[in-house]
Amino acid sequence: MNERMNRIDLNCDLGESFGPWRMGDDDALLAVVSSANIACGFHAGDPDIMRRTVARAIAHDVAVGAHVSLPDLQGFGRREMKVTPEEIHAMTLYQIGALHAFAGAAGIRLAHVKPHGALYNMAARDRALADAIAGAVHAFDPRLRLFGLAGSALIDAGKTLGLLVAAEAFADRRYLGDGSLQPRSEPSAVLDDADQATAQAIGIARDGTVQAANGQAVTLHADTLCLHGDGAHAVALARQLRAALEVVGLRIAAPDAA
Amino acid sequence: MNERMNRIDLNCDLGESFGPWRMGDDDALLAVVSSANIACGFHAGDPDIMRRTVARAIAHDVAVGAHVSLPDLQGFGRREMKVTPEEIHAMTLYQIGALHAFAGAAGIRLAHVKPHGALYNMAARDRALADAIAGAVHAFDPRLRLFGLAGSALIDAGKTLGLLVAAEAFADRRYLGDGSLQPRSEPSAVLDDADQATAQAIGIARDGTVQAANGQAVTLHADTLCLHGDGAHAVALARQLRAALEVVGLRIAAPDAA
Amino acid sequence: MNERMNRIDLNCDLGESFGPWRMGDDDALLAVVSSANIACGFHAGDPDIMRRTVARAIAHDVAVGAHVSLPDLQGFGRREMKVTPEEIHAMTLYQIGALHAFAGAAGIRLAHVKPHGALYNMAARDRALADAIAGAVHAFDPRLRLFGLAGSALIDAGKTLGLLVAAEAFADRRYLGDGSLQPRSEPSAVLDDADQATAQAIGIARDGTVQAANGQAVTLHADTLCLHGDGAHAVALARQLRAALEVVGLRIAAPDAA
Amino acid sequence: MNERMNRIDLNCDLGESFGPWRMGDDDALLAVVSSANIACGFHAGDPDIMRRTVARAIAHDVAVGAHVSLPDLQGFGRREMKVTPEEIHAMTLYQIGALHAFAGAAGIRLAHVKPHGALYNMAARDRALADAIAGAVHAFDPRLRLFGLAGSALIDAGKTLGLLVAAEAFADRRYLGDGSLQPRSEPSAVLDDADQATAQAIGIARDGTVQAANGQAVTLHADTLCLHGDGAHAVALARQLRAALEVVGLRIAAPDAA
Repeated sequence: MNERMNRIDLNCDLGESFGPWRMGDDDALLAVVSSANIACGFHAGDPDIMRRTVARAIAHDVAVGAHVSLPDLQGFGRREMKVTPEEIHAMTLYQIGALHAFAGAAGIRLAHVKPHGALYNMAARDRALADAIAGAVHAFDPRLRLFGLAGSALIDAGKTLGLLVAAEAFADRRYLGDGSLQPRSEPSAVLDDADQATAQAIGIARDGTVQAANGQAVTLHADTLCLHGDGAHAVALARQLRAALEVVGLRIAAPDAA
Repeated sequence: MNERMNRIDLNCDLGESFGPWRMGDDDALLAVVSSANIACGFHAGDPDIMRRTVARAIAHDVAVGAHVSLPDLQGFGRREMKVTPEEIHAMTLYQIGALHAFAGAAGIRLAHVKPHGALYNMAARDRALADAIAGAVHAFDPRLRLFGLAGSALIDAGKTLGLLVAAEAFADRRYLGDGSLQPRSEPSAVLDDADQATAQAIGIARDGTVQAANGQAVTLHADTLCLHGDGAHAVALARQLRAALEVVGLRIAAPDAA
Repeated sequence: MNERMNRIDLNCDLGESFGPWRMGDDDALLAVVSSANIACGFHAGDPDIMRRTVARAIAHDVAVGAHVSLPDLQGFGRREMKVTPEEIHAMTLYQIGALHAFAGAAGIRLAHVKPHGALYNMAARDRALADAIAGAVHAFDPRLRLFGLAGSALIDAGKTLGLLVAAEAFADRRYLGDGSLQPRSEPSAVLDDADQATAQAIGIARDGTVQAANGQAVTLHADTLCLHGDGAHAVALARQLRAALEVVGLRIAAPDAA
Repeated sequence: MNERMNRIDLNCDLGESFGPWRMGDDDALLAVVSSANIACGFHAGDPDIMRRTVARAIAHDVAVGAHVSLPDLQGFGRREMKVTPEEIHAMTLYQIGALHAFAGAAGIRLAHVKPHGALYNMAARDRALADAIAGAVHAFDPRLRLFGLAGSALIDAGKTLGLLVAAEAFADRRYLGDGSLQPRSEPSAVLDDADQATAQAIGIARDGTVQAANGQAVTLHADTLCLHGDGAHAVALARQLRAALEVVGLRIAAPDAA
């Protein structure tokens, strides 16, 4: 274990309520994670919820990032849209700025930006869209860290611009032999067993390896693990993961935490 | 004429297109005004249009402000809504932040904030809403200048918080003996005659007085005059007003211009 | 007890989920009520949810009505807006038509229309808005029944046009001596006690009277009782109410049921 | 020329204003076309505009159809989205119903349904989406006629369900040797010359043939020609086309006109 591997970030999507509708147990998750990706009103969230969620994240000493999305409340940002890099650039700036307003008014700086849902997937494989997002992040504040799928076009785009990045991995998603995620359309794509997910998290965070679907150990560098906030057992799994990571000697901290 | 009266700001609402729909001749108006109130996506504007409008304002060396609104695209922010001060505070922060992102990415600072339409009128008379707006402006950046109707609750709210303010007057609206605007529901509320509007603009900007509907000269301090961007003769009237103000020796400049 | 008093309708707001967000236990409530007011996408609901909710209502043999609203998803249609009668007329037609499409495709007719939230309250006291709603209902299908607050301008507007109406009362809201509802801003406006609400429901449905806040028995004619779908005990109270009404000999049925 | 070829429908997209924003010269176009595709609020239009546009179409004795779209006002329904057939089915029903309400209230029946923009293109090539649209049209009213690109999956889907269809062709788009449209990405895809477009319209409408890009005459059966409403010369071209078609003996009439 090299020095880098002494710590890992745990991030979670938060502030995904909208108007009168609630989603997720934000307070419980804020007690577990080190980075919060807060919805900016395009797939979820509204000004009131953004303000409250930023305040709650600060109360839990969790780093705040903008969870930018395609504009699709009904589809929760999960439906891909054919948008141009120029449109992506502008909508990313808009959303970062909107969340920044609540962060700044509350006395903190935004720490990171992470695309959501369909935009996350599009930016993982389409370099032009990835460049548009990275460019918007850099134009807003070059100190912002860009979160993206480990090994993706988005991470490459961020590095090319000189941004700090955080390569993201998943405790409960199965990896293939080339280090990519098994598509969700395949039945075994999600690790439903909490102990298996915990073991995978430790492997990634401590050892930098993951056991792929074909049984091989694959090298996988990750700076942050994504915890899911929805689902019946989300909070329980999140707590188990954090405890297990701490037991093996890892410190849970946002990438830019002291 | 005191020293203060050597200059006046001309402001106009801009960036009020949306998606495929155009509104106003922004470039022509940017050649006339000194302050641009740019729509932030709640009553008009979208991320693409905001980015382009900021770039055009910079090209014309016009100060950029956030034109914050109630969330009502179809109604163009002109329909009053019963919103709480907390909601107003949050939606104001959201919109300032969103426009700030484009300003910052383009290398400038926002200069001011002005509420739009129904929110402007509500904030003129309701001190709790006015405080919510002024508080949001102050929380975002205490150097931002707050634009509001001369003599309104909004101007008072801004002063109370120590904000710089700009009291706004209208060249083409008729004033009553108490310095308030004649309600639009009354037939003579708008000065349709360009020469009359020009004369009123000069009176306000140079002399600090306006001839009220009852014939009396009323003292009216204004830091900025609002030019309308819509209507067939908007650009022609704007040009005539600016020329006339310059002829009588006034300098047209944003309040915070050097 | 006259013959009319042998039956009562129980109505509930349903289909108030939106996109990924759930609200209420629609299936449990559909097992209790006789009329479903289904959201039409303006304050809640979307095409997918409308389709599913209509199908569930049919499965439970519950009458389907359009729950029309001001356009305000974030505010859940609860924030009053200054809209014109023409705007109200058009948005009412739009929403009735949208829900009608799902009803017709599923082989049933819409039974009623009920305004939601702020629109309900506005239409109760503003006759011009009430006329606009009633006119839209009549223009769409004069056989549709209009639901509105007992004694309200909306009921009057419906009767004037010759529409069938259903006067609505509330089991769990306190009434004043003049038969109006105690404003929610007053602390005792809501009956929190389930037994008290049940007793009030029986009084209204069987006897046509309600005990007002001042202790007097007030005459109150109601064709339908509104059950609330949200809140922790909504389903339990709904079941208790229905059972109690049936025990005293009332039949629970939609106004136009055989 | 067979008997069928004695008449042709001219259709145009109308009611594409939104809130305060105007688009197109609807009245001028209504004087030329025989079928109006009216926006239903998803890519353009709002309840007020829908009501007015239906009234204008009736005044011009033009057949009214629902111009259904993906939900994307900012993108004007031109950005493809990954939506499921179930979602398409529901959003098609919703929009047909909404427009039907205005048609019914004004005393007419809807005549047809035509998908707009990205949805039109998706339904032309994706049979599952085409089936979803055709199924929604059939479920709403099996007498409605389905408009779609000549030779497309949408026309096939409509025929399979037993719907009346109208195969659509374009006067000002270049065709390839296989009867398909030259992609817009290619420079010569649009016929900018009005005389050329007029000649192509006559060829299609009278003779059932079009001269393809490769110079060959290709058979192309069309029931309706699409006229564009936007662009500087839209109205002039529309008038020229109609006059030329009438000169060669064709009657301009909606497919279901007497």
